[in-house]
Amino acid sequence: MSAADPRLSINQATIKYADLATALRVTAEAGVGAIGLWREPVAEVGLAQAARMLNDSGLRFSSHCRGGFFTLPEGPERRASIDNNRAAIEETATLAAAGAPGSTPVLVLVSGGLPEGSRDLAGARERVRDAIGELAPEAAAAGVELAIEPLHPMYASDRCVVSTLGQALDIAADFDAGVVGAAVDTFHIWWDPDVVAQVERAGREGRISTYQVCDWATPLPADVLLGRHYPGDGVIDFGPITRAVIASGYDRDVEVEIFNEQIWATDPLEAVRRTAAGFAAAVSPHLTA
Amino acid sequence: MSAADPRLSINQATIKYADLATALRVTAEAGVGAIGLWREPVAEVGLAQAARMLNDSGLRFSSHCRGGFFTLPEGPERRASIDNNRAAIEETATLAAAGAPGSTPVLVLVSGGLPEGSRDLAGARERVRDAIGELAPEAAAAGVELAIEPLHPMYASDRCVVSTLGQALDIAADFDAGVVGAAVDTFHIWWDPDVVAQVERAGREGRISTYQVCDWATPLPADVLLGRHYPGDGVIDFGPITRAVIASGYDRDVEVEIFNEQIWATDPLEAVRRTAAGFAAAVSPHLTA
Repeated sequence: MSAADPRLSINQATIKYADLATALRVTAEAGVGAIGLWREPVAEVGLAQAARMLNDSGLRFSSHCRGGFFTLPEGPERRASIDNNRAAIEETATLAAAGAPGSTPVLVLVSGGLPEGSRDLAGARERVRDAIGELAPEAAAAGVELAIEPLHPMYASDRCVVSTLGQALDIAADFDAGVVGAAVDTFHIWWDPDVVAQVERAGREGRISTYQVCDWATPLPADVLLGRHYPGDGVIDFGPITRAVIASGYDRDVEVEIFNEQIWATDPLEAVRRTAAGFAAAVSPHLTA
Repeated sequence: MSAADPRLSINQATIKYADLATALRVTAEAGVGAIGLWREPVAEVGLAQAARMLNDSGLRFSSHCRGGFFTLPEGPERRASIDNNRAAIEETATLAAAGAPGSTPVLVLVSGGLPEGSRDLAGARERVRDAIGELAPEAAAAGVELAIEPLHPMYASDRCVVSTLGQALDIAADFDAGVVGAAVDTFHIWWDPDVVAQVERAGREGRISTYQVCDWATPLPADVLLGRHYPGDGVIDFGPITRAVIASGYDRDVEVEIFNEQIWATDPLEAVRRTAAGFAAAVSPHLTA
């Protein structure tokens, strides 16, 4: 077993079909020091048990996925979604406390798409801000950082109305840094002509809650959610974005989160090892500025 | 036959499988006053014959599709591409002169994606600017306007490294307005949080070379190039963008360009009629500010 880059964290989505016990085991076995968890596999074993398992693993906890889905108009469904985010905040605090030293209590937020039948993109975006306004005090009280994740514009209608890092930062600007920040994920923002400037801005404003890397390749698969690749297997130059993240003083783990049917079909230990190898080749050289 | 909106133009791609004669006939028969042509069906009959047929149709010519593919590094392939654009400029001038009064000599440019094996997005973008610098004097001499088309960011790697209207305008800014402008296509830019401000900027700078409308819907089809829809059949609110275009003084035709297998399988006259109906319902109300 050769150790992976000490800053690498495996986001659990990369090995989606592994249960929590398996995910923790293969991550540690591959010499990776940190993991980002998802709510569903945590819920399968229960939060208290998940926290114990995480603690036993010796891994750092780098983020919790995910909260959000904030675009519905006022009503019972919106209230249920906000309450669900309250639970996610508590989970994040519990898991971060259970992880090894260096764990970060970051909850990633995917904003949600246009409500069924709506064409009011500006209104949906305002409702995202409103929801974060409701949740920010509770996150602050729990010591949890909310990370607004801009998703690629191809998901703007059905999944996430926050489409650029600049837009995420504009929303975050209404709230305290350290409570509301942004998730910087190369897959979603690599195409943005303004990406390096916005990463620098995020750094200056203290808003890089989490840095995630994975690669983009074309053709996109039939389900465009699943077109993510090991670092190095696509067209993204990880240098400029990574160096801007590091130059900002970012000292947290760097997650790899890949949605890809082929990778999900790979033995999870093998998938983690390949992730670590891709990361070492494509990302690690840029982590030491 | 009820007349379509007097500003509607049918981009020939909407009825891709119709030859030039059919495209001209059904467009006129549906009461539409203008057409945007593609190079391939024009080449099939030859430029001189195409110009005669266009003239006989009584239709205005609203744009020629398409030039571009500017991202290759220097070498014979890049030279061939630049030469090919010179031919496209001449075709555009000839066709605009053959169209009915109100025709506009606009050549739409799709920049091209990353060259095979390259990850240098910034370099590819610079080569787009360089190519336009070579072609701008020839376009000016021919009285042709080059319209840089930002394509949706999901095409950034394989088709077009110009991904936002702001980026297109930044490139165009190096050249005279009236020679280099931008193609404003709702499908590609509707998601941009900055879209209305950038359309207003394009108007102020005299850079709206052509305004095109079609709709976005999810799920995207397996081939993401083909996920375009009749106006009104998707989630785009045509109001804000259209009103900003009109408020800028834009007085040209408004094209509908749809890539969609189902629409291509429709009888072309029927497809034009449905396009006209969608346009009348979703776009026309915003054309009279």
